Amino acid sequence: MTPPAPTPAYRRLSVEERRGQLLDAALGLFAHRVPEDVSLDDVAEAAGVSRPLVYRYFPGGKQQLYEAALRSAAEELRHCFDEPREGPLLSRLGRALDRYLAFVDQHDAGFSALLQGGSVVETSRTTAIVDGVRRAAAEHILSHLDAAEPGPRLRMTVRVWITSVEAASLIWLDEGKQPPLDELRDWLVDQFAAVLTATAARDPQTAALVHALAGDV
Amino acid sequence: MTPPAPTPAYRRLSVEERRGQLLDAALGLFAHRVPEDVSLDDVAEAAGVSRPLVYRYFPGGKQQLYEAALRSAAEELRHCFDEPREGPLLSRLGRALDRYLAFVDQHDAGFSALLQGGSVVETSRTTAIVDGVRRAAAEHILSHLDAAEPGPRLRMTVRVWITSVEAASLIWLDEGKQPPLDELRDWLVDQFAAVLTATAARDPQTAALVHALAGDV
Repeated sequence: MTPPAPTPAYRRLSVEERRGQLLDAALGLFAHRVPEDVSLDDVAEAAGVSRPLVYRYFPGGKQQLYEAALRSAAEELRHCFDEPREGPLLSRLGRALDRYLAFVDQHDAGFSALLQGGSVVETSRTTAIVDGVRRAAAEHILSHLDAAEPGPRLRMTVRVWITSVEAASLIWLDEGKQPPLDELRDWLVDQFAAVLTATAARDPQTAALVHALAGDV
Repeated sequence: MTPPAPTPAYRRLSVEERRGQLLDAALGLFAHRVPEDVSLDDVAEAAGVSRPLVYRYFPGGKQQLYEAALRSAAEELRHCFDEPREGPLLSRLGRALDRYLAFVDQHDAGFSALLQGGSVVETSRTTAIVDGVRRAAAEHILSHLDAAEPGPRLRMTVRVWITSVEAASLIWLDEGKQPPLDELRDWLVDQFAAVLTATAARDPQTAALVHALAGDV
């Protein structure tokens, strides 16, 4: 075993590193408090840095911090559905959900606050960020389905399933994190197969995909 | 045929009638503009009454008007799922959806603005009103399913399907009201049967319901 590198008492971080450190601290606070109860001073304390430093990074105050944290969370959530195109499709979906649900588990109250709205710092701009995550997830899934030109029924099915994942995550948090995460993940995969199959009954494009999926075990 | 009652040029409305008239006017405006762009003056103009009258009914200003309109819309949406316990269950669900989707169609942009959040007048109180509609719809459906003590998997399935209805409605508006409403309704009923069946594979309570449903045609 190599000994851990000694941590210097003071190390100058790059602007990006410092920003990342402050956003991590903010996301940590959002996990336990609603955004309007998190001040820049709280972030300074949590990150162990001076208040002026935080104000220098977020001169726009609480709203800017919240949006930056939301963008950072959105970036992380986007990556959840970014899965190598290898192996059976439903297994890929399961791995993507494992990452997504781990994020939900880790950020619990912060996930609700960031994605559920109903916050005084909610604006149409933050709604657009959250919608961007949903759209990116839908694009990933459609590309894994090899649907080059997805028709309206297929798109609707995938987009609605993504809001189901979000809703199920919020209910899961609300119910004290029950059932266990792997059960929730399997249930969501089952739901995906079920809604796709239901759409297939009325939509030839989806029917062809479901047919291909059935051979893909 | 009896002739219509003559409309007096001026008729004194009861407090409740007047309030209802003003809320109707407000909902009409929310259908085409986001809440923050609707002023009490606009409501006075739309309802054809004096400004002081509107201010007397909504002394709390725009926020009070918005919440009252949201409550009124919520009340209407709650009633959509209040269906007589007669006939096959999926037909009842279809009728409930017809009412719900007619509301969506009629209030379009207002429905998005009221339910989607992302508005500067969105608060945790308005979120609670919207959540109340979702919960009421879930209660109605669970009672129609004759699930006296619904377990967590069944509740999760019904609650998540309700958010699917909402998401599908928002997407439908976003896509220029395509597909036609009856197709959307049939698709949502299919989705309900599909997600319930998927849950049944892992949950005996839901399996028993699906079994009963299958005989209920």
